[in-house]
Amino acid sequence: MRRLNFASGPAVLPEVVLKSAQAAIWDLDGSGIGILEHSHRGKEFGKVLDRTERLVREVGGIGDDHAVLFVTAGATQHFAMVPQNFLRADATADYCHTGVWSGKAMEEATRCGHVHVASSAAPAFTTTPTEQRYSAAPVYVHYTSNETIYGTQWTAPPAGAPAPLVCDASSDIFSRPLPLAGHGLIYAGAQKNLGPSGISLVIVKKDFMETGRDDLSPLAQYRVYAKERSMHNTPNTFGVFVIGEVCAWILAEGGLVEIGRRNAEKAQLLYDFLDHSKMWKAHAAPGSRSLMNVTFRGATKELEAKLLARADELGMSGLPGHRSVGGMRASIYNAFPREGVVKLVELLDETERA
Amino acid sequence: MRRLNFASGPAVLPEVVLKSAQAAIWDLDGSGIGILEHSHRGKEFGKVLDRTERLVREVGGIGDDHAVLFVTAGATQHFAMVPQNFLRADATADYCHTGVWSGKAMEEATRCGHVHVASSAAPAFTTTPTEQRYSAAPVYVHYTSNETIYGTQWTAPPAGAPAPLVCDASSDIFSRPLPLAGHGLIYAGAQKNLGPSGISLVIVKKDFMETGRDDLSPLAQYRVYAKERSMHNTPNTFGVFVIGEVCAWILAEGGLVEIGRRNAEKAQLLYDFLDHSKMWKAHAAPGSRSLMNVTFRGATKELEAKLLARADELGMSGLPGHRSVGGMRASIYNAFPREGVVKLVELLDETERA
Repeated sequence: MRRLNFASGPAVLPEVVLKSAQAAIWDLDGSGIGILEHSHRGKEFGKVLDRTERLVREVGGIGDDHAVLFVTAGATQHFAMVPQNFLRADATADYCHTGVWSGKAMEEATRCGHVHVASSAAPAFTTTPTEQRYSAAPVYVHYTSNETIYGTQWTAPPAGAPAPLVCDASSDIFSRPLPLAGHGLIYAGAQKNLGPSGISLVIVKKDFMETGRDDLSPLAQYRVYAKERSMHNTPNTFGVFVIGEVCAWILAEGGLVEIGRRNAEKAQLLYDFLDHSKMWKAHAAPGSRSLMNVTFRGATKELEAKLLARADELGMSGLPGHRSVGGMRASIYNAFPREGVVKLVELLDETERA
Repeated sequence: MRRLNFASGPAVLPEVVLKSAQAAIWDLDGSGIGILEHSHRGKEFGKVLDRTERLVREVGGIGDDHAVLFVTAGATQHFAMVPQNFLRADATADYCHTGVWSGKAMEEATRCGHVHVASSAAPAFTTTPTEQRYSAAPVYVHYTSNETIYGTQWTAPPAGAPAPLVCDASSDIFSRPLPLAGHGLIYAGAQKNLGPSGISLVIVKKDFMETGRDDLSPLAQYRVYAKERSMHNTPNTFGVFVIGEVCAWILAEGGLVEIGRRNAEKAQLLYDFLDHSKMWKAHAAPGSRSLMNVTFRGATKELEAKLLARADELGMSGLPGHRSVGGMRASIYNAFPREGVVKLVELLDETERA
């Protein structure tokens, strides 16, 4: 029997997608060859790539002014690639510092040029900053739309940026309508809401992309992915396939508005409980709370241990918080079912009454 | 029904591996969670990573003086990473030029330091050079053990190298016993003999690895993969799983000596036919012929078209040569069955008689 998977990523995927992946591994769409075995230059994979790009565009409402890229890497690679492409040694990029991931992104940028911290939620990281102090002429403004570790999420992108926004949307991409306006580039490791690990989705405004360096290794340049349709070298073909299946599922479920409504409802169930609990407390402040990763703590370590033990018995996995902060974390991405959240709330309630 | 897949990569995988992947996608080893969904920091994936590394070491006969790394990238990334790590601006690396892939590797090296061409099979690329003229003090000597496009393969590594060998073994890794002696680093995109695309295996001698730069982005340093056991960021977890399954299959089949014997026998069937044919001719010269990618041409374009049409009817796919050279190419990696080669020879014979 499959368990309720609260893992922060890689994370739960829709069961219909898993079944489709199982079938395609043996035989892709009646071709007589599996998706792992099809040449990336063949017409069958060509159809897969076309379909996935089309569905990504349809889900996100992405037009021709943006390129949709599939990069064989996770978000960490983009921490380096973004400044390598866009931040010259004498230029400045602004970063909003909301946790571990934005911190890592910033650190990579310092290898290339100047970094200005436009806002910081350090050291508690319970909020997303409402005010940013931008530098005079940044080349871009980077933010992390959802911080998985602290469980905070921007309800809207940073306002008033004097340059294109660059967003690490790894953990909330396609969890609500995509805010393209103002963005130069959005990148996302696939392993939370999109598919398997080992591939990332990049949505980049073409005019911003063209401002990037053109003297780097081909695989380090976003423009090369755009020009060669993510086929400069062999892409993660299975990842491209699964992302397409996930997007088809999102559309079948009603698209991002409906997905966003469900995610808000699921998270609300948990936060409502936590806000009324005497034993459990949410980490993030209201107004900055993640709908994807609900972080919370018990009144005692014993209570937390008891919860984990009982959760395990009840078929729930992945509730311990990130090793760097401890506590509890319920990651409830798109594919995580509402019933699972209800069960967790029931369990929390049970531990409180006991 | 599954077809005979002569694709050069991604390429045919053992059916037992595909079945195992199908099962693991729903539920990894009775854990109640699929391999795509398991946290890379959880104990279940930890077991997968341990097992895959252990099996890679067992298959390759790799001891503790080498690190075994899984990099979320294909070989093209290593074309850049190898010189970034090991070739300083004032130093020289030697490259043996045997085709398109070694050419691309060389081109990336010129971005970092001096490149000396130790040997070249240009422009016909029908051989692997028997004599190398090394530079005075190269930091490494790079070669491509098998060139998929021209269908040539080194029968033994370049001799007499004055520095550690670096080998792109993407298309013949684990197709015969692994020649570790003399090598500093061996890299291989997985999508031919190891697993799916989007992941590569690196086998690196630890003392050579330590000579690399330590001031690059973490994901650009081989030492970081070694230190953090390929878990600096989320690895391609599915790829790691499949590589483990492929290695288990290799061991079950008798290991690399037996696999090498079979590969030699399969290739011999084809080359024997080609050498006796009046209508078909092998591209590569005897002594340099690939056991993985048998490239050949028909006496006329019509004959080649006829072969492809008839092959398609008979359930054979992937026989056209690389778009840059044309002709025919039969890629017959580890998992390609002997019966498939026999069928191709029968078909070639049929076209010759007709």
